[in-house]
Amino acid sequence: MNEQQEQNHERVDYLFDTDLKIIQSSELFPFSLDSVLLARFAYVPIQKGQLVDLCAGGGVIPFLLSQRTKGRIIGIEIQSEVCALARRGTVLNHLEDRVTFLCADAKDSDALIGRGSCDVVTCNPPYFTVDAARDMKLNRHLAVARHELLITLADVLEISARLLKPGGKLALVHRPERLVELISGMRAQGIEPKRMQWVHPHRQKPANMVLVEGTKGGKPGLTVLKPIVVYDAAGQYTEDVRQKQ
Amino acid sequence: MNEQQEQNHERVDYLFDTDLKIIQSSELFPFSLDSVLLARFAYVPIQKGQLVDLCAGGGVIPFLLSQRTKGRIIGIEIQSEVCALARRGTVLNHLEDRVTFLCADAKDSDALIGRGSCDVVTCNPPYFTVDAARDMKLNRHLAVARHELLITLADVLEISARLLKPGGKLALVHRPERLVELISGMRAQGIEPKRMQWVHPHRQKPANMVLVEGTKGGKPGLTVLKPIVVYDAAGQYTEDVRQKQ
Repeated sequence: MNEQQEQNHERVDYLFDTDLKIIQSSELFPFSLDSVLLARFAYVPIQKGQLVDLCAGGGVIPFLLSQRTKGRIIGIEIQSEVCALARRGTVLNHLEDRVTFLCADAKDSDALIGRGSCDVVTCNPPYFTVDAARDMKLNRHLAVARHELLITLADVLEISARLLKPGGKLALVHRPERLVELISGMRAQGIEPKRMQWVHPHRQKPANMVLVEGTKGGKPGLTVLKPIVVYDAAGQYTEDVRQKQ
Repeated sequence: MNEQQEQNHERVDYLFDTDLKIIQSSELFPFSLDSVLLARFAYVPIQKGQLVDLCAGGGVIPFLLSQRTKGRIIGIEIQSEVCALARRGTVLNHLEDRVTFLCADAKDSDALIGRGSCDVVTCNPPYFTVDAARDMKLNRHLAVARHELLITLADVLEISARLLKPGGKLALVHRPERLVELISGMRAQGIEPKRMQWVHPHRQKPANMVLVEGTKGGKPGLTVLKPIVVYDAAGQYTEDVRQKQ
């Protein structure tokens, strides 16, 4: 760590089994397993294309996607301090030619990037409604990342529908209790849910996350992949999680 | 087997780890694991109440539910030969005082039984649309059981909404590819999806069934239970399936 990083309560971590580095700040918020699993789950075109990550945070999803595609990746993050972290991470990982972060409201992204311009949209959105936020005391950065203060699930789906090409794909991670809204909303926006994977913290526990991918203008028909179990009986990550990118 | 049963290509089987007998006919169609898993998954009131099983077939679900509740159970089956089998099974299992089969169109069931009269509705409906049926050559009984020739998913949800008391529960089994319709349709009928469980034939395979339970007038909020894996690596039923009722 250098001096500036220490002052900002930051640390640099390696991402799961990759050479990627991610700058995290204890004053902002840490990246989560959710983002790692989403970046593995999402379809990507291998050789080219435009990918957009909404609510990009510190950039974990764009960095991981950059390992799977030669396409151009744009991250959109509304909080300037968080976006600055993502930009520094881009330099640290030598990804400046392929990964760009825009500090902007995701709701403006079709004006910024172009309607119907994207092959893939990914998003690890705020999971909790504003009502749920009232009882919680969080720093502002964490509150914005976790609660629908600045963007709602309905917003994310509407924005994604505008950004995607016909046949383009939206991949999201969310909480199981929002499933009904999520998949009804996708269909309402013309993004047909096609692949789903449930994430269980332990083999015998209810799911605490769901990964969903839809295709703009896709035909109905959903595949539900084998579940991901995060921890084994000894409390260690299972093979499902430890797998290489 | 007696002579009549032999002539009808019937056999009597015991249901998984129970003393229940089920009459099956090779000229009609066999009961399936789907029904067994649904009968285990569904909430039941223990001491009393009215439960209805739509598309009851040979009666597997009512028979299994009778082991978990002292309530009254009504099975509705439109095909008279199949309903006759279910009635003989009722006698064979000495359940005449608690289980009744009506040979009727499920669409008439609120007129027959009473609107808002049910604590629980269960249904293992036809899984496939009529379009899908066109290419298939099935005997009529099997075709009606598997394809939406006489009843659609939308019908089942509408009938269930009429039959259920406020707070009453609907438990269904269906194919993953119908999930979007299923849960959007439940919510549209005022039956909020509350519990879900995915069934995978093998640990590493995509799901081929989903169990869903909703509450009439329930608040949003879904729990996704640990998945059921049907077969182990040796091709034997796993503990998930072999468990006692």
